[in-house]
Amino acid sequence: MTTIDWTNRCVQVDRDTFGRAVAELKTAIGEQYVTDSAADLERAARATVPDPKKPSLIIYPGNATEVATAVAIANRYQLPLWPCSSGRNWGYGSATPVLENTAILHLRRMNRILEVNDELAYAVIEPGVSYRQLRDYLELNHSDLWCDSTDGPPEGSVIGNALDRGLGVTHYADHFGTLCGLEVVLPSGEVIRTGGGPKHCATWHTHKWGVGPYIEGLFSQGNFGVVTKAGVWLIPRPEAFASFTFDLARPEDLPKLVDVIREMALRGILNSACHLINDVVTLSVLAQYPADMLDKYSRLPDDVLDEMRKRLKISHWSLGGGIQGSRKMVRLVKEELRKRLGPLGRIMFLDEGRVKGVETLNRLRQRSSLRMPIDWAVRTFAGKSPEMLQAAPHIHSVLTGRPSDYFVRHAYFKSRLPKPDIADPDRDNVGLIWFAPIAPMTGGHIQKVLDICRPLFRRYEFDFYAALLMQNPRSMIVLMSIFFLKEDQQQVLAAKELYEQLSRATSAATYQPYRVSVLGMGHLTSVSPESARFVRMLKSAVDPQGILAAGKYGI
Amino acid sequence: MTTIDWTNRCVQVDRDTFGRAVAELKTAIGEQYVTDSAADLERAARATVPDPKKPSLIIYPGNATEVATAVAIANRYQLPLWPCSSGRNWGYGSATPVLENTAILHLRRMNRILEVNDELAYAVIEPGVSYRQLRDYLELNHSDLWCDSTDGPPEGSVIGNALDRGLGVTHYADHFGTLCGLEVVLPSGEVIRTGGGPKHCATWHTHKWGVGPYIEGLFSQGNFGVVTKAGVWLIPRPEAFASFTFDLARPEDLPKLVDVIREMALRGILNSACHLINDVVTLSVLAQYPADMLDKYSRLPDDVLDEMRKRLKISHWSLGGGIQGSRKMVRLVKEELRKRLGPLGRIMFLDEGRVKGVETLNRLRQRSSLRMPIDWAVRTFAGKSPEMLQAAPHIHSVLTGRPSDYFVRHAYFKSRLPKPDIADPDRDNVGLIWFAPIAPMTGGHIQKVLDICRPLFRRYEFDFYAALLMQNPRSMIVLMSIFFLKEDQQQVLAAKELYEQLSRATSAATYQPYRVSVLGMGHLTSVSPESARFVRMLKSAVDPQGILAAGKYGI
Repeated sequence: MTTIDWTNRCVQVDRDTFGRAVAELKTAIGEQYVTDSAADLERAARATVPDPKKPSLIIYPGNATEVATAVAIANRYQLPLWPCSSGRNWGYGSATPVLENTAILHLRRMNRILEVNDELAYAVIEPGVSYRQLRDYLELNHSDLWCDSTDGPPEGSVIGNALDRGLGVTHYADHFGTLCGLEVVLPSGEVIRTGGGPKHCATWHTHKWGVGPYIEGLFSQGNFGVVTKAGVWLIPRPEAFASFTFDLARPEDLPKLVDVIREMALRGILNSACHLINDVVTLSVLAQYPADMLDKYSRLPDDVLDEMRKRLKISHWSLGGGIQGSRKMVRLVKEELRKRLGPLGRIMFLDEGRVKGVETLNRLRQRSSLRMPIDWAVRTFAGKSPEMLQAAPHIHSVLTGRPSDYFVRHAYFKSRLPKPDIADPDRDNVGLIWFAPIAPMTGGHIQKVLDICRPLFRRYEFDFYAALLMQNPRSMIVLMSIFFLKEDQQQVLAAKELYEQLSRATSAATYQPYRVSVLGMGHLTSVSPESARFVRMLKSAVDPQGILAAGKYGI
Repeated sequence: MTTIDWTNRCVQVDRDTFGRAVAELKTAIGEQYVTDSAADLERAARATVPDPKKPSLIIYPGNATEVATAVAIANRYQLPLWPCSSGRNWGYGSATPVLENTAILHLRRMNRILEVNDELAYAVIEPGVSYRQLRDYLELNHSDLWCDSTDGPPEGSVIGNALDRGLGVTHYADHFGTLCGLEVVLPSGEVIRTGGGPKHCATWHTHKWGVGPYIEGLFSQGNFGVVTKAGVWLIPRPEAFASFTFDLARPEDLPKLVDVIREMALRGILNSACHLINDVVTLSVLAQYPADMLDKYSRLPDDVLDEMRKRLKISHWSLGGGIQGSRKMVRLVKEELRKRLGPLGRIMFLDEGRVKGVETLNRLRQRSSLRMPIDWAVRTFAGKSPEMLQAAPHIHSVLTGRPSDYFVRHAYFKSRLPKPDIADPDRDNVGLIWFAPIAPMTGGHIQKVLDICRPLFRRYEFDFYAALLMQNPRSMIVLMSIFFLKEDQQQVLAAKELYEQLSRATSAATYQPYRVSVLGMGHLTSVSPESARFVRMLKSAVDPQGILAAGKYGI
């Protein structure tokens, strides 16, 4: 018999039952796609968050039928499953479940791009399809379509991120908002299509709401089924594209800047999910924690941070975003941005032409004889550091929705390892927790969230990393990261406590998280008991044994 | 005891139980707010669709607590309730339930505007608040905010329409898409707030998804609860606004036009839910069915339609929409529209200045000496009829989201009554059924839907009324109306048969309705059995006795 022990947050597995379940799964899915080898489980249990839960088994189904079979078998043996698309949910728990001893249902083998509709600009894909795979495929075969991406791992799952309501960088950044039409294996093993549709419903991937109650929401940040296929809206390649970066002159103008951004977003001037990042974020992208300080400090001393900021010409807050449309439209938006942002700081635009120029400069800098004069010119005339010059083409590229390894390497900021070409913080034992409340996008609210959180970071001696991401014209995510050394037990403890304190303080101040790490799913203080009760009632009807993703988002 | 008799589509009411329920409801809600008088029930049973179901009782709660009390009492006596916001769901069933003998839970007394947030551009309102009420309130108190509206009844409920996923006219036309943060009385009588939030969640009305599974969808086109309060996103008054109307030169270019619209929508040039209407739609707005033909024909003979079209200068297909933004932005969009639509027909723009000019002309036309020369000039130079001249200011106004009595009077096209100042087709026994499949927005798909439906209208001898409404850049609603004489039993029968045939034929061709009338809820052929089973499973968990809106959307 298998039971869930909520107190110890684990699943109690009777070895006999478990053995029979594994045997049956191996027969159904294939010997090589069901593993409980110690090495595999150990690898799957790695995550950047503290205390990741170890799975009991990993199942790699190859298609929806095998998912249904696995779910049916799991039901028969009361074996809890944790579906996971690509396992790149870094900072939120990676591939690891909420409860110890759960079996991971890993969907990475299901990585087919089933359809791309050029006319209607959407793709139908499986959960194992990554941003990089989709973008590469589009560039090769459908050059008039772009997909959005996060600035996180290029190998992240497009569907997985959308279902967890992740945010991208373009005007299609609300990934759940641009997901349309799901195929879902229910906990019963039955397969349904959302929108109420039968197999060949013409608007399955073009009309989000379908007919009758709209149920796709239940499968986002939820555990009502395993999504095995989904429609994803794509971006028609714009006639023109430009990116911009803006440096806020006076940090005390941040609330003003937030209000200007909202105003522009509400009026349709700014459409893309622009990112407003603080100095530590920029620093973590451009540089590395000074190695000699790693053991001494868990927070950079103020004077060191000041010195680095000056040397790298990092401003307290920088804003970046994309502009797309016809050539004239882009020109007009640039004009508006200049007019509205100009009084608050310095704005710079990049387009393909300028990016080529910057890339040439970056190449010329390789020659030692040219480095000094180029750096001098860049500092003096553009007000930028050479490090920023190197980052610029990456920023421009990612803002078109093209996934990039460049930014995700910032996770290694506090690692003892130098930033690798291909980041894999799970493999490299990097310590990182995301904490992400969302607030109404007014200067007042954003300032309040920052004022609540900044002192807590200081109290626990961690660098205050804050990125403000526009979720929609009325809401902004305050994305904070706790970087810590996993090998330092004291830091791990402090990171966990800080996370706990942040959750409590923001929730008490009426701010809800937009997304939660497995670490925080046990005590969602910002969810009302009656709401949770309602969702649990629905869940029990569909999954009476609690087989699927038990404990996800507190359900 | 009360039971639902699905075969006879009614509720079997034991008079004793019913009497006790009524007594208890009267004590709780107030004698005057609970009525089962024959006259009241007869009035509530009027609807433009055929065979509206008569309710057994009408309850008018005054607030959420009374709604909860009513639901609790209904549960105790197994008295099925049909929640209704304002009862203006004309063409889809008005206030009437799916099953005979259901009690109507009428929310029209709950009509408070609880909050308007100027900074974040949203309002919090009760379900009894109408478009007109909200717009008037904003114009008086918050002149920098607009709300969207349908071109239907101004007294329609903002929340009711959004929950049924109705469509408006501006870039906020997807009414369910701009609904954010609900207070819901569950079938158990318990009250929850969506988004998982506790009472004071700061982003309740700014962030649609909340945290955890997104459940608002269950309350749209659904029967999982009674919405007693909701956030509605408002439009910041644009710096500039213009409307356009476009007449397609050759009807055979319709598919081309649809493709051009999609392209412009996908590229963000067209943002508002532009309406593409056929000759019969324009006719029904501008004119009246020739009185002498009402008894002879249920469909205008081709030569009569031709003659009317020529006289009124109505083209086979006309497109209308709004443009908003900065002055320069509006100018740019006009330029794009001219470039892209120009080759296919004739485009005309209106702004506040031109509207004033047109209004002056319309006034001058009142003088008999000026009428002829003005009409001659309008016909010759603008290519418009005097009737269109009169319609123009109404079109411009409604496209800013301002509700209007003007358009809804088209329901009287085939009525024996002249169009009244204030339309009330229920009161006036007007026969009207909406049928509204949705298709991917490509010329091919739209043409196909029209080709399926047009011959059916002809077979049953009804005028082919078709309006193509952009739901999003990838989908278009093909809104068809069956106008019939309610007093003519043969026409009623034919209208019902046509509706049935349209449902079957479009569903067989893979097109789903975007919204359904109570008439069609009993046999949603376009919903797959497994999807329906899943939703019913959820419904049973929440409302085991089927108290709320039994039969709504087949659930």
